[in-house]
Amino acid sequence: MAPSKSPGASSDRPLPTDTYLSEYSKIFDHIGMLEDMQRMAAYHDAIKRNAAVHFKGKVVLDVGSGTGVLAIWAAQAGARRVYAVEASGVGAHIQTMVEAHGLADTVTVLRERVEQVELAEQVDVIVSEWMGYFLLRESMVESVLLARDRWLKPGGVMYPSHARLLLAPSALPRFLLRRREEIASSMHAWEQLAAELRSKYSLRLDALQAAYEREHHEYAFSEAWQGILPASLLRDEPQVLLEADMHSVTHAQFFDWQTEVQFAPPHADEPQHGLCGWFDVRFCGSESQPAHECVELDTSPEAPPTHWAQTTLLLERPLDGSPLVVALAQNSGFHHDLNVTVSSGAWSASYAVTADFRGGEDFLEDAEAEEGEEGA
Amino acid sequence: MAPSKSPGASSDRPLPTDTYLSEYSKIFDHIGMLEDMQRMAAYHDAIKRNAAVHFKGKVVLDVGSGTGVLAIWAAQAGARRVYAVEASGVGAHIQTMVEAHGLADTVTVLRERVEQVELAEQVDVIVSEWMGYFLLRESMVESVLLARDRWLKPGGVMYPSHARLLLAPSALPRFLLRRREEIASSMHAWEQLAAELRSKYSLRLDALQAAYEREHHEYAFSEAWQGILPASLLRDEPQVLLEADMHSVTHAQFFDWQTEVQFAPPHADEPQHGLCGWFDVRFCGSESQPAHECVELDTSPEAPPTHWAQTTLLLERPLDGSPLVVALAQNSGFHHDLNVTVSSGAWSASYAVTADFRGGEDFLEDAEAEEGEEGA
Repeated sequence: MAPSKSPGASSDRPLPTDTYLSEYSKIFDHIGMLEDMQRMAAYHDAIKRNAAVHFKGKVVLDVGSGTGVLAIWAAQAGARRVYAVEASGVGAHIQTMVEAHGLADTVTVLRERVEQVELAEQVDVIVSEWMGYFLLRESMVESVLLARDRWLKPGGVMYPSHARLLLAPSALPRFLLRRREEIASSMHAWEQLAAELRSKYSLRLDALQAAYEREHHEYAFSEAWQGILPASLLRDEPQVLLEADMHSVTHAQFFDWQTEVQFAPPHADEPQHGLCGWFDVRFCGSESQPAHECVELDTSPEAPPTHWAQTTLLLERPLDGSPLVVALAQNSGFHHDLNVTVSSGAWSASYAVTADFRGGEDFLEDAEAEEGEEGA
Repeated sequence: MAPSKSPGASSDRPLPTDTYLSEYSKIFDHIGMLEDMQRMAAYHDAIKRNAAVHFKGKVVLDVGSGTGVLAIWAAQAGARRVYAVEASGVGAHIQTMVEAHGLADTVTVLRERVEQVELAEQVDVIVSEWMGYFLLRESMVESVLLARDRWLKPGGVMYPSHARLLLAPSALPRFLLRRREEIASSMHAWEQLAAELRSKYSLRLDALQAAYEREHHEYAFSEAWQGILPASLLRDEPQVLLEADMHSVTHAQFFDWQTEVQFAPPHADEPQHGLCGWFDVRFCGSESQPAHECVELDTSPEAPPTHWAQTTLLLERPLDGSPLVVALAQNSGFHHDLNVTVSSGAWSASYAVTADFRGGEDFLEDAEAEEGEEGA
């Protein structure tokens, strides 16, 4: 044996797993986030512009501190004490960063899971960059909510303070065609292999042909695609699936819901084979301690691209303008992944949102081809 | 957050983990093995040519049956009863295969871990395709040895019956150069990122520069490279690191050893920056029940290529002709991976053999460039 693709992962442990943490254990794993200037600017501006109201003289907890950037900005904004909590291997470097900024007296590095940390005091502010694909993939926000309920003072402030998950229909004719061509090509190779094994070894691999084709369909149409979706492919305004005030939102409100959305009916000559999801978060403070200046981080196709890109659900049959019920839950096997179900009447389709990286260039080519045709 | 590469995996459970099993849960995961005609021919010929002596009227256990191919061949070779044991998701398809071959009365499918299976009887033969990179990666052979000790009749036969692990020095000038260029390029990108973050946000990412460069060196020089190594790059005859009779070998003999090897000193104008490992297995029966005809499966660079390819350890400093001590152990965190240490006097280098797929084309380009130069 020797495997031909990367392993998946499975666990039902209640705490963030080693498998999940190892996604972030190297500095290398953080480069894509450090390079994302939309992400960096939003957190930097939010902390800096609200230094006087939320950070000066305050106690701050940074949940999942990574290379320590948010903890350092909080300290530079005047925090009296910052706890930087990081359980993955990259936490070994936070102290180096803190000392390089001359903040060793202010920032305390705790290389533990936030679920197990013991702080000497309650905190005024929690900063964290917990957002994953489709807002909630990774389920890291679970740890943030737990830290909030355990360590945030009454009336304390969350950074970010508000989060939304949005969905819009999109036209993806070439993307869908390419997926169908890939499946056809894989099945052609399969038939050749089955013929060879039959003639050489009398093996009846053809008995598995239907099951193998089903696997390919599931891969194309039951896993979410991650990539930059050009705004030109959107076909209606987005609907809000979920809107959360981080100061009061519950675990169930994030991870166990369904909601109905209604989009404009597609044109007959332009079927909609995609649903595109993204999120935005705001830094506006709490009701009792509003921010001096709200800052927003928007991962919409209309906004400058981020490393999150967008999440596309590819549909085997086009939308028909009926209302859609969208439901979300954590994957029962590996709770860092998500299951998203879209249904309309008797029809329904389910998708896994995982750490599998797919899409990207495909969507862009789709839009470029479309623009080329429009120009012609 | 959103990760930028595939997650690793970590576990210290004694049984094959779900993470490991999920590497083989889809039919898709088995295509590379079904396409490997060296592998298929060796098992097919070994079973067919020894049908009369080892299979006719016998009871057979197939450990890790996958799509059921070995179980089917054993039944076609006249076995009275075949137990096909498969714990991963792909086991759902074995019954379909068995029925397509009209063997439902002979083959019993057990969708369990072999460690937990209860058979109605002891078996005459154990067939299994357990070999991984560097022979032992995956540690699946642990399950085979356990099955042998629990279910094989005294004097019963193992398929394969013998296994060897081999090592030879190789010249890899262009491969080494390319790795060094990649590191330099990554560090250049890092310096630009650090400059941008410093000017925009006063962040001192340069504090982590040495640690980041160390990560790149570790990736290049502390992880084994998997790929087809052309025989023209070998620089001496292989030495045997390990030779096992599958009827008597112990777990410790496979997974906890060190041995000394000595290769011809390199030429001064051609430094040897690689150690190349591979394996072969034979199907020769046991001492008391020798095969009618021995069959061999050889993954050497001199043999036709297989999906296992070869395993290359890239060295930061060239070999000098001194004796080398090679040691192997299972990774303490994830026991399906291996740690290999090569040392000579005070110098030593350690490597991880994992499911990470790297190398391949690189080595071939290396050899092609070399041949081009020789031809010029």
